[in-house]
Amino acid sequence: MGHPLTQHALLLLQCMLVLRPGGVAGRRGPVLLPESPCYKAEHPLVPHSEMEPWIFRFKAEGTVDFSQLTFDPGQNELIVGARNHLFRLSLEDLTLIQGAEWRCDEFTKGACFSRGKSEEECQNYIRVLLVNGNRLFTCGTNAFTPICTNRTLTNLTEIHDQISGMARCPYNPRHNSTALITSGGELYAATAMDFSGRDPAIYRSLGGMPPLRTAQYNSKWLNEPNFVSSYDIGNFTYFFFRENAVEHDCGRTVFSRAGRVCKNDIGGRFLLEDTWTTFMKARLNCSRPGEIPFNYNELQGTFYLPELEMLYGIFTTNVNSIAASAVCAFNLSAITQVFSGPFKFQENSRSAWLPFPNPNPDFQCGTIDYGSYVNLTERNLQDAQKFLLMHEVVQPVVPVPYFMEDNVRFTHVAVDVVQGKDQLFHIIYLATDYGTIRKVLSPLNQSMGNCLLEEIELFPPRKRQHIRSLLILHSRSELYVGVRDQVLKIPLKRCDYHKTREACVGARDPYCGWDLVLKKCTTLEESVRMSQWEQSITKCPVSTAEHTPPPTHTHTPLALYLTHTHTHTHAQTCTC
Amino acid sequence: MGHPLTQHALLLLQCMLVLRPGGVAGRRGPVLLPESPCYKAEHPLVPHSEMEPWIFRFKAEGTVDFSQLTFDPGQNELIVGARNHLFRLSLEDLTLIQGAEWRCDEFTKGACFSRGKSEEECQNYIRVLLVNGNRLFTCGTNAFTPICTNRTLTNLTEIHDQISGMARCPYNPRHNSTALITSGGELYAATAMDFSGRDPAIYRSLGGMPPLRTAQYNSKWLNEPNFVSSYDIGNFTYFFFRENAVEHDCGRTVFSRAGRVCKNDIGGRFLLEDTWTTFMKARLNCSRPGEIPFNYNELQGTFYLPELEMLYGIFTTNVNSIAASAVCAFNLSAITQVFSGPFKFQENSRSAWLPFPNPNPDFQCGTIDYGSYVNLTERNLQDAQKFLLMHEVVQPVVPVPYFMEDNVRFTHVAVDVVQGKDQLFHIIYLATDYGTIRKVLSPLNQSMGNCLLEEIELFPPRKRQHIRSLLILHSRSELYVGVRDQVLKIPLKRCDYHKTREACVGARDPYCGWDLVLKKCTTLEESVRMSQWEQSITKCPVSTAEHTPPPTHTHTPLALYLTHTHTHTHAQTCTC
Repeated sequence: MGHPLTQHALLLLQCMLVLRPGGVAGRRGPVLLPESPCYKAEHPLVPHSEMEPWIFRFKAEGTVDFSQLTFDPGQNELIVGARNHLFRLSLEDLTLIQGAEWRCDEFTKGACFSRGKSEEECQNYIRVLLVNGNRLFTCGTNAFTPICTNRTLTNLTEIHDQISGMARCPYNPRHNSTALITSGGELYAATAMDFSGRDPAIYRSLGGMPPLRTAQYNSKWLNEPNFVSSYDIGNFTYFFFRENAVEHDCGRTVFSRAGRVCKNDIGGRFLLEDTWTTFMKARLNCSRPGEIPFNYNELQGTFYLPELEMLYGIFTTNVNSIAASAVCAFNLSAITQVFSGPFKFQENSRSAWLPFPNPNPDFQCGTIDYGSYVNLTERNLQDAQKFLLMHEVVQPVVPVPYFMEDNVRFTHVAVDVVQGKDQLFHIIYLATDYGTIRKVLSPLNQSMGNCLLEEIELFPPRKRQHIRSLLILHSRSELYVGVRDQVLKIPLKRCDYHKTREACVGARDPYCGWDLVLKKCTTLEESVRMSQWEQSITKCPVSTAEHTPPPTHTHTPLALYLTHTHTHTHAQTCTC
Repeated sequence: MGHPLTQHALLLLQCMLVLRPGGVAGRRGPVLLPESPCYKAEHPLVPHSEMEPWIFRFKAEGTVDFSQLTFDPGQNELIVGARNHLFRLSLEDLTLIQGAEWRCDEFTKGACFSRGKSEEECQNYIRVLLVNGNRLFTCGTNAFTPICTNRTLTNLTEIHDQISGMARCPYNPRHNSTALITSGGELYAATAMDFSGRDPAIYRSLGGMPPLRTAQYNSKWLNEPNFVSSYDIGNFTYFFFRENAVEHDCGRTVFSRAGRVCKNDIGGRFLLEDTWTTFMKARLNCSRPGEIPFNYNELQGTFYLPELEMLYGIFTTNVNSIAASAVCAFNLSAITQVFSGPFKFQENSRSAWLPFPNPNPDFQCGTIDYGSYVNLTERNLQDAQKFLLMHEVVQPVVPVPYFMEDNVRFTHVAVDVVQGKDQLFHIIYLATDYGTIRKVLSPLNQSMGNCLLEEIELFPPRKRQHIRSLLILHSRSELYVGVRDQVLKIPLKRCDYHKTREACVGARDPYCGWDLVLKKCTTLEESVRMSQWEQSITKCPVSTAEHTPPPTHTHTPLALYLTHTHTHTHAQTCTC
C-alpha cells in the first residue's frame, strides 16, 4: 500500500538515475552532470582543501535524517532509512539503486498536529530497519502513530503487510530505541510504548513465542531508560541502555546497564502474566580509577565483536556536566559472571539496598540445568518479580578505559579488527558530537596505552553535522555514516596516500606497511610477501603522542589532516 | 627559649636591614643595592614586560612556605609564618621589621628521620598564627612533633611559654587545619591529632572552659576530613570542611560541611565525657542546577562577611575528576535554619538513612530557651551522641553559583565590598591553582550574571607558583599573598592606570570612576564630588564578556593584562 509517487519524487528518482552510470564509471562518487536538473546553485561545491577526496556521498533533495543503515545479506547493497524515505544504494559508489517514499497520510498528520506536535515532528522517521531473510522489516514514527511494514528486500515498494509500530518503534523521533529479529523470527524491541514516552518496555512479538514485556510503570524494572543497543547471543537477548539509578539515595544519577532475557521465556502464570520471568540487569562500570573514581556514567553506543565475545562501549558524562568521554571494553564472560552472582535488593523504602544470594546461579534459561524450564514454580516467579538488579558491577577488561578525552562527547562507535604484520589490532572508530570520526588504536598492552591515529573530517569546519549512524563493513573495510542530509562512505584502507617510506611506517596505521619490493605503501593483501612488508606499531605517531583535547568552547579537531599526502582529485556529489 | 641565631641567620637579618631604608624611601619595594651581600646572580631580575610594576614583594634567602599571614591589631604590620621563620613586615612596602628563626632541634629532627620522614618534611612548618591581644600564639609542625609558643607581638623572639602542639597543629605539613582564639582565650582547633593523621578532631583547649573534642575514631562524627576554616559567631564556633560522605552508598564521595559547637559546651557526664554534646554538621550544596545537577563537592576555601552574615565558599570537583570550580554564597541564616531542622539518622547498617525530627529546634546553646543548659538530661546526651548530621542541605543564596569555571581549580578566596557610585559591589578575588588571581564582580542581579574583571599575574608565565595564603586588608584595600618563596602585596585600587575616560569607565571597575573635574580616573575618595564622578557598571567589560576557560593541558590565563596602561616603572625585589 505504498503511496502514489508525487511529482517531486519522480523528479528525484529521475535525477538520481541520471547520475548513476557516471558514478559507477569513475569510482569517484556520482559525477555531476551540469545540465542535469539536480544542480542547485545554493549548494556550492566545497573547495578542494576542505574536502577528503576519498569520501563518497549520497544526497537526495529534501530528504533528511539518514539515521538508519543496514546491509543486505549478500552485502552488495546499503539499505538506508531516512525521514519519509527508504533507499537502496550501491556499496560501490553510493549511487541509488532504488528509492521508496514512505510518508504518513494527511489524516495521521492532522491528528498529530491536533496533539500539539510540529510539522517537523509529524513526519515518518524510520527507526527500525531490519533484514529478515529476503524481507525488510522496517518501522517509522509515522507522525506519532508508529507503523511497521514488511517489504521485499529487492523491491522496497513491494509491501507485504503493515502492522502497528506500538512497542516496536518510538512515537517520538527523539526517543532512543533498539530492535532485532532472531533467526526464529521473533522481534525484540526496546522502546517507549506510548505517545508521552512514559511507558518504556522491552517487548517481544511476532515469531512463534508468546509476546512478553517488562512490568509496566515499575521503576525497579526500567527507570526512564535510554535504549542503546541489543544483541542476540546464545540463549539470551541482551539489551544495553542507561537509566536513572534506583539503588542509592545520593541524588539523581544515570547508570549504564546490561540487561538480558531468555529467548525461551514464556512468561508467568497468574504472577507475571505476559511478563518476562527472566529479566535481569547489571550496572556497567566505566570510570577513571583513583581514590575517588571519576565515573563515565552514561552509555552512548556499543559495538559487539562476536568472535571475541567482547563488547566495546562508549560512555560520557551527563549533559549537564563537563563534557568527557571514554571507551571501555567488556568481556561477555564478565557480564555472565555478574548475572550469576548475588542480586541487589531493597526490602522496603526504609531499608538499605543489600546483596541477596542468587537462588539460581549459572542460570542458562533452563536449557542446561534443572531439565525443562517450562514448569516454573511459584517461588521462581516471586523471585523473578523482585530480583532484577545484580549486586555486582560489570567491570571492563582493564580498569583504565581504553581511551579517554575531555571536552568532547562520543556518540557512536565501530571497531575493526585488523591483521598487522606481527599481530591483530583493534581499531576503534569514534563519532564525535561535532561531526568528525576519531580513529584510535586500542592499547596493545597496559604500558603502551592507546593511540589517536587520525581524526577524519567529514565536513568543512563551518558545515559540520551531528553523526546519526555509524556502520562498518569488515569485508570491504569501509565505514558508512549517516548524517542529517547525506550518507557517506569512507574507505578505511588508504595506504597509497602515504607516498614515502617514512610517512607510511610513521603513520603507525595497522592497515598499512611499506612494501620493499613494490617501493610503495600497501595493505597486507597488496604486499608481495610479508617478509618484505614493513610495519612498526610499537608506539604512537609522534603527531598524536601527547594529543590534547580541543578546548570546550570550540570544536577544533586535532586536525591530523591527511591532505598533505592527498592527490587532490576532486570528489563530486549529487547535490539534488 | 629561642634558638641561638646561626651564622646564616645573622647574615640574613643583616642583609635585610641593609635593604630597609631604601625600601622605605622609594615606596617601590626594597631597593636592590648591587654591593649588598644579598644579590644573587641565579635570581635574575624579571624583564619589565613580564611584571606588574605595582606589586610589592618580600623574599628572605633560603626561606620558603610563606603559608601563614595575619595582621597586628593596629593593622600596621603583617605577621608572616614561613618554614622555620616568623616575620614582621611593614604594610607600607613589605620591608622587614623583625625576623625570628624557629627551627626544630637536632634531636627532634633525628626522631623524625628515624620515623622515615624526609629532610623536607622534618622542618618546622608554621600552621597556626593567631593574634591574641598583645601576644602572638603560633604553632609549627616541628618535625612531626608539633609545638606552640606564645610570643610578644612586638618582639617575636620573646617567647613566654611553649606548649605541645598536639590537637592544635598538624604533625604533617601537608594536612589541612584551622584554628581560632575566642575573646575568652579558648583555642578552637580542627586538625589531625596524630602522626599518621588518622585521628582528626575539633578540639578546644586553653582559656577557662574544659577541653573538649569530637568523638575519637567515629566516622559518623568526622570521616577523613579536610578542615578549611573556622569562625567565632555568636554562641557558636563554626567549622567548615570537606569529608567523605557517610550518608549514602553510591561509591566514595566527598561532601562539603558546615559544622558547629556551642562555646558554652562543657561536655557530657558518663556519656560523652570530655566530648562535645553540641556538635552538629550539615552538607553545603554548591552545584550547577539541571535535571541532574552537576555538583562541586569539595570546599576549598571560605570568606566570611560578618556585617552581612554571609559566607563565600569556593568549591571544586575531586582531584581525580576534570578540574572545575565554582563560587557559592551562603547566608548564615540558611545554615542556622538547617541546624534547626530534622536530623539524618541511620538506625543500623541494614537500614536506610532517614529524617528524624529535631528534639531541640532553634537550639541556642541553652542561653535562650529552656533556662540553663548546664543540666543536660540523659536523653539529651543520647541524642547528642547519635544526632550529628542534619537532614536538610544548606542551599546557597541563589541556586546558580555566582561564578563557575571549567579546567581550573580555585584554592583561596577573598571578598571586598566596595562602595560604587550607585550601589555596593562585592568583588571576589580567586586564587587559581596556577598562581594567578581572578578578580570577579559578584552578580548584581540574576539576569546580569558575574563579570570576570581581570586576571592578576603574580609571576612571569614560566615562573608560576602555587598560592599558599590570601589575605585582604579592607582598610587599605590591599591583597597580601603568600607563595613558596615570597610574600606579595597587591594594591586593589589602581585607577590611575586607566589614562583615558573610555579605559576608566570601560574597565567597569567598581573602585574607579572618571572625575570630570580632575579629568582623570580616580577612586570615589579621590573624586572632587560624586556628581562629577562617572562610573557605569551595568554590564561586563567587553574583553571578558564571553570569556572562555583556559584549555585543560595548559594554564594560559585569560591574559587581561593591564600592561598596556602601565607606566613601566620597574619594581625591584630583594633576591636574598
